[in-house]
Amino acid sequence: MMSGLRAITVVGTGLIGASAALAARKAGATVRGWDPDPEVLRVAHEREAVEPAATLADGVAGADLVLVAAPVAELPHVVREVLDLGSADCVVTDVGSTKSAVCAAARGDARFIGGHPICGAETRGPDRANAELFAGATWFLTPTAGTGPELLRAVHGFVTSLGARPIAIDAGAHDRLVAVTSHLPHALANVLLNQAGAARVDGHDPLQAAGGSLRDMTRIAGANPRIWVDIFLDNREAVVAALAEHRRRIEQLEAALTAQDGGQLARWIAEAATNRRRMLATAYGDPGELQRLRVHLPDRPGVLAGIFQALGAERINVQDFEMEHLSTDRGGTLTVIVAGEEEAERASALLEEQGYGVVLAPVIDA
Amino acid sequence: MMSGLRAITVVGTGLIGASAALAARKAGATVRGWDPDPEVLRVAHEREAVEPAATLADGVAGADLVLVAAPVAELPHVVREVLDLGSADCVVTDVGSTKSAVCAAARGDARFIGGHPICGAETRGPDRANAELFAGATWFLTPTAGTGPELLRAVHGFVTSLGARPIAIDAGAHDRLVAVTSHLPHALANVLLNQAGAARVDGHDPLQAAGGSLRDMTRIAGANPRIWVDIFLDNREAVVAALAEHRRRIEQLEAALTAQDGGQLARWIAEAATNRRRMLATAYGDPGELQRLRVHLPDRPGVLAGIFQALGAERINVQDFEMEHLSTDRGGTLTVIVAGEEEAERASALLEEQGYGVVLAPVIDA
Repeated sequence: MMSGLRAITVVGTGLIGASAALAARKAGATVRGWDPDPEVLRVAHEREAVEPAATLADGVAGADLVLVAAPVAELPHVVREVLDLGSADCVVTDVGSTKSAVCAAARGDARFIGGHPICGAETRGPDRANAELFAGATWFLTPTAGTGPELLRAVHGFVTSLGARPIAIDAGAHDRLVAVTSHLPHALANVLLNQAGAARVDGHDPLQAAGGSLRDMTRIAGANPRIWVDIFLDNREAVVAALAEHRRRIEQLEAALTAQDGGQLARWIAEAATNRRRMLATAYGDPGELQRLRVHLPDRPGVLAGIFQALGAERINVQDFEMEHLSTDRGGTLTVIVAGEEEAERASALLEEQGYGVVLAPVIDA
Repeated sequence: MMSGLRAITVVGTGLIGASAALAARKAGATVRGWDPDPEVLRVAHEREAVEPAATLADGVAGADLVLVAAPVAELPHVVREVLDLGSADCVVTDVGSTKSAVCAAARGDARFIGGHPICGAETRGPDRANAELFAGATWFLTPTAGTGPELLRAVHGFVTSLGARPIAIDAGAHDRLVAVTSHLPHALANVLLNQAGAARVDGHDPLQAAGGSLRDMTRIAGANPRIWVDIFLDNREAVVAALAEHRRRIEQLEAALTAQDGGQLARWIAEAATNRRRMLATAYGDPGELQRLRVHLPDRPGVLAGIFQALGAERINVQDFEMEHLSTDRGGTLTVIVAGEEEAERASALLEEQGYGVVLAPVIDA
């Protein structure tokens, strides 16, 4: 265990809290837990994630670090309560998706740093908790000007010991950042899906006619309202600003279309291609090298195993892949991404030998 | 070959045209081809997709059916030319992504029906042509009030012989439908990515911090400008209408956020969840049954083969799956979708036996 934090207490033992508890135990810590819901605490105990505390005060007493994993709307008052109960050298941090309100509630307390792991998991019960939840995940930490280096080092070490990658950022900046990277995308997915769902075009339902683009764009739509209403409300200022900026950009596009300004449309698409390349560079090194192979697969067992076996046997290094159903009787589309044209040619030839028609194209258009 | 159309001519022998030619040949037709670019025609010939015609007139002469696979902006005049050259009983159809302009150019000619295969392929050269491109794909046909049943039957049969599923729709309705299902999603993906790409939050680049939501929402951003500028311009009326409606819905959301109306936000998310369930019902029968398993994978060869082998050996019926890189050194996330909780439990246990931490959740929140 890094940083000497051996006694951890998790307040809120749902999926995130109990997973952090399991990861901390795996890293050598002693972990106690408390949850306002006795059943949630019981299951977290049963999963051997935490030793249950009788009360919040009991749980906080003697802890080196308290991790508050409460829902966003509860966080400010729970963190405040934990700080009031905690000893003078008890480190307190949290896992909320928004940071301004909870950091404000801590009132500059030198024992607190806000935190936010990006693990893609929603609030659920502890029965699905697992120690690997934070493996490789970004974990934002929001120190203030008054945060001492020792405190930051301690929480940095704790987060690292769970397998995550800490990134320090100002709390307000964090909220504006996630407004753009997460809350705006979620909002747009909902808006788009509800627009398509409300439309009837000459008796045709856009949702029945939906191709890959609408499905890709709405994967994150309709996400757990128990979480997302609170996130949207808590971060409403930054989200409203992002939505207003989005509307301004939509108006520009409408103007370009009305003026039939093909040059502006071409520059706008080229800008998106450049941004896409920049975004994917984090994940792939050189996204310009990536080639996408697409094949139509019948809905038949064993088909996938055969394909992956063949690619594996020829040591094709598959970067990413995806299988998506078209319909219950039309099979689906398998997309395989490999790096480099030569690799793509080899993979393509292999698939063609198996009788599949391969559509090969670069991921990013030159 | 269905419908007795034995002599096919493909005008425009790029990826789509040459693939249709290969599929038609496979179905027993004789296929000739013509392209304004001699090199494109030469490659299509080399791929044994078409017998090259010396001129457009030469290609059209004697054809039972001419398939025009020209770029959207060229379609109206090429179809007009083909109709002028074609015999009295020559059937003419096309593959354009928008249908109003090309149908108007045909001026109610009783030999023409517009067409649009949804195959997700972009305009490229014929070197990647393959006969399976349309397998299972929706292929819109746009008959008018004056279209005779024999003509519709003939083109319906031709499209079916290529492996596609024809759906008849009015041309204007088609354009309004794809404005919502395809052009609006593409536009929003570009707008969102350019908004995130232009933002700098306290020195942090949203594109570097992008999690799964931003990547999911912008997969289709930056798509081939040679195609998309024409599509947006050609369908600008329907696209502008869809964008204006989108803006109206964004304003409603901003108002709900500003008013802190949690009830309205909850209803809006629930509506999206209902729409998502309805959209996925086409592909999966009962989407409410779907369970999503997510595991973090190290970037190591053989890992995937091991997982799919284990799932296959236990006869886990994988519906969909996806592997997406987080970064070059942090591995990636594997998502596996199975139907039914019991199946999900078995799959989860298998993966846990292999040492992976599984996050299991229903695809659609109850």
